[in-house]
Amino acid sequence: MEDTRYGLKVSLAVPYDEAVVRATDALKAQGFGVLTTIDVKQTLKAKLDRDFRKYVILGACNPPLAYKTLQEDLNIGLLLPCNVIVYEADEAGKSVVAVIDAQTMLSVAGDKNATLNAVAAEVNEKLRRVVAQL
Amino acid sequence: MEDTRYGLKVSLAVPYDEAVVRATDALKAQGFGVLTTIDVKQTLKAKLDRDFRKYVILGACNPPLAYKTLQEDLNIGLLLPCNVIVYEADEAGKSVVAVIDAQTMLSVAGDKNATLNAVAAEVNEKLRRVVAQL
Repeated sequence: MEDTRYGLKVSLAVPYDEAVVRATDALKAQGFGVLTTIDVKQTLKAKLDRDFRKYVILGACNPPLAYKTLQEDLNIGLLLPCNVIVYEADEAGKSVVAVIDAQTMLSVAGDKNATLNAVAAEVNEKLRRVVAQL
Repeated sequence: MEDTRYGLKVSLAVPYDEAVVRATDALKAQGFGVLTTIDVKQTLKAKLDRDFRKYVILGACNPPLAYKTLQEDLNIGLLLPCNVIVYEADEAGKSVVAVIDAQTMLSVAGDKNATLNAVAAEVNEKLRRVVAQL
């Protein structure tokens, strides 16, 4: 498990497709549904005719926590959902999963709101468990 | 047009559904496709049985610019796509559209990368045009 400046990243010794399933299942176990899926490889091919590694952006949402933040700041939808990315590692047959750091994200919305801070901390705790479970 | 800490917001004297169409069209005119749509009202009703105002989170993506950022930082997918939100205003028949501030978002990824900074500035310029056009 490796902290980047704005996320938490882990390498898995399984192929991409298996990593996507594992990430989705681990998110579910922590109360996050996947609301959106962006197939980056497919999108870049379709829009730009560029080849890219297999790469997906999953928009993960924990509804009770999202609801709490929306009640606190109606514009917080600009920062939702929580992104989780899965992509092929440079090494064949391996993959990378990374989750956003919700507290860092929230910092752009100003960090003076105690409720928002508490939710972001809770989200991070859950996302850390997701990564640990992979 | 009003700057929030992390976005740019405008009130429109048109109903929600019309505002969603206008936002989508204005994004398209600036080269952004809408890759994802989260119906917040519907999601909160379905998952939590809570009533909420009409509210949508659009995931907007300008493929050439997204590609440029991905080549610069493979993990930047954690911050993509650019969110645009549309919701019912408190006043009946009016709506609010807000777009994320890409430069503020990018600041969480560290602001030392000249290419990423230049792309974020370009995205913001385009998003400002989107808001101006509504």
